[in-house]
Amino acid sequence: MKAIGIDLGGTNIKVAVVHKKKGILEQTSVPTHAELGRVHLLDRIAATVNSLTQADGVIGIGFGLPGMVNLAQTTVFHPPNLPGWEQVNAAAEITKRTKLPCKIENDANVSALGCLYFGKGKKFDSFVMLTLGTGVGGAIIHNKKLFKGTMGMAGELGHVIIDYHGPLSNSVTRGTVEAYVGQRFLSRFATDMITQYPDNDLYKRFHGNFDKLEPVDLTLEAELGNKLAVEILQKTGQRLGYAIINYTHILDIRKYMLSGGVSKAGAWITDPAREIVQKHMMAPFQEGFELMVEDLGNDSALLGAAGLAFDSFG
Amino acid sequence: MKAIGIDLGGTNIKVAVVHKKKGILEQTSVPTHAELGRVHLLDRIAATVNSLTQADGVIGIGFGLPGMVNLAQTTVFHPPNLPGWEQVNAAAEITKRTKLPCKIENDANVSALGCLYFGKGKKFDSFVMLTLGTGVGGAIIHNKKLFKGTMGMAGELGHVIIDYHGPLSNSVTRGTVEAYVGQRFLSRFATDMITQYPDNDLYKRFHGNFDKLEPVDLTLEAELGNKLAVEILQKTGQRLGYAIINYTHILDIRKYMLSGGVSKAGAWITDPAREIVQKHMMAPFQEGFELMVEDLGNDSALLGAAGLAFDSFG
Repeated sequence: MKAIGIDLGGTNIKVAVVHKKKGILEQTSVPTHAELGRVHLLDRIAATVNSLTQADGVIGIGFGLPGMVNLAQTTVFHPPNLPGWEQVNAAAEITKRTKLPCKIENDANVSALGCLYFGKGKKFDSFVMLTLGTGVGGAIIHNKKLFKGTMGMAGELGHVIIDYHGPLSNSVTRGTVEAYVGQRFLSRFATDMITQYPDNDLYKRFHGNFDKLEPVDLTLEAELGNKLAVEILQKTGQRLGYAIINYTHILDIRKYMLSGGVSKAGAWITDPAREIVQKHMMAPFQEGFELMVEDLGNDSALLGAAGLAFDSFG
Repeated sequence: MKAIGIDLGGTNIKVAVVHKKKGILEQTSVPTHAELGRVHLLDRIAATVNSLTQADGVIGIGFGLPGMVNLAQTTVFHPPNLPGWEQVNAAAEITKRTKLPCKIENDANVSALGCLYFGKGKKFDSFVMLTLGTGVGGAIIHNKKLFKGTMGMAGELGHVIIDYHGPLSNSVTRGTVEAYVGQRFLSRFATDMITQYPDNDLYKRFHGNFDKLEPVDLTLEAELGNKLAVEILQKTGQRLGYAIINYTHILDIRKYMLSGGVSKAGAWITDPAREIVQKHMMAPFQEGFELMVEDLGNDSALLGAAGLAFDSFG
């Protein structure tokens, strides 16, 4: 079974023919040029799809993009950085131009479908995916399907409160897990901690340039034995652990996948998260609990978009 | 369509024939006598079912009881106050004795099914039920079905963290909504507040007997204009609001039903909960949000148990 995946990024549009078992068969990429407007961009995507040479027999198109998507997986609302896209039935626009059935989905859900069809999620019926990027995205797979809730927006897992007195994130909500674990906020927290220790190597390296501090710098320092770096990542993992308890007590889904930049810290954050889960999650929910890091590499969004087509038309 | 509902309480076993449209047609009750052991109790329940005179043509039995129930709705684990019931396939035991198909479910889920078939839930496809009793129970109805998760335990909504630094409840988890809103903890919080104001009527009435303070006393005082009582209920409602934000951001279900003793405070807690939701829940989730109090009266557990039979065999 084959499908077409579209990954609409800020810089490039990537399009691929993906085989359900063999993975990517053909791939192409063109610059996005979102500033040229909605019609131009949709034409450009469709032309790229129509230029594929191995698309004969595909079951349809899966299209991953930023923004909130409706329950029918056709219409996107207010996608960031796409001028002229307030509310667009992008699936219909692509179908009109390609004569192929199309479904759309947001980045976090696409990432989970990639994991389900091509990654560690293949062996599970149900799991939760957390994308630890600039913000924290989430997606719920239940019985091998996306769980979308009543209006398509389920799985806003970054916006789950773990301390209602806590710091604001970008959203209207206080003390959400994103406000601790999202890359933007983790860097803020790390800067705050590091500023207290002028003798620490992290202070010496980043003093005056704390805006350049990335999670990978913390991981590298932790591996060199820097205890402050270890502590910062440990607290991050613990806070992730509290959020995971909330998801599990509500959903009774026991497999967790981490992806995105912050997840590259690996055991520096997953070990403390597991400790909190073991200590504070109710005993009947412990059985079968697993927390792992998923990394499908640069093509993960394309694979996920094709996964959406398999999910919808397969 | 007719079904049999069984409500196994600490004092009495209630059994009824329930019509899907007309409600309870016939009802009977016998003492529980759980201390006489499992076999005696199962025999007693079955004999009561077999004594019903209007059970011809029923589609099956729904059986509500305390404890964790498996995904197949057949087996209960460690039900409190039932000696000899460590792990029992209660559905099979009842079927063996009555020749009728049977499913079992825990109290909170039964309560939600009662609401779905006989209460305010009739007009919704999906809603969340919160039972604010001694503890806080929860249940999730999605597309007119119970959402049970991967192992049957989904919807432990009382054990969702809103402040990971917060007080312990009965569970291993800190700062859960139950630790603030459950009747046991609400009374503790109220006592703490009232002790600071010796001139307050609540202090004068309950000084030396704070263990007798019930949520209804707070409601009655609030209605008399006691500002301290209003403040205690307001903080309770606000904390409930934070928990509701967590459920909604994860599930994208927008209808909420409150039941149980603390819910009788009505607008004294629902208004502050709504204010928190309006302020801190993400804008796209606000559309269609509703919070209401469900009260099916003394027969609610029986109606819910019959609802379980309609859910399973209807």
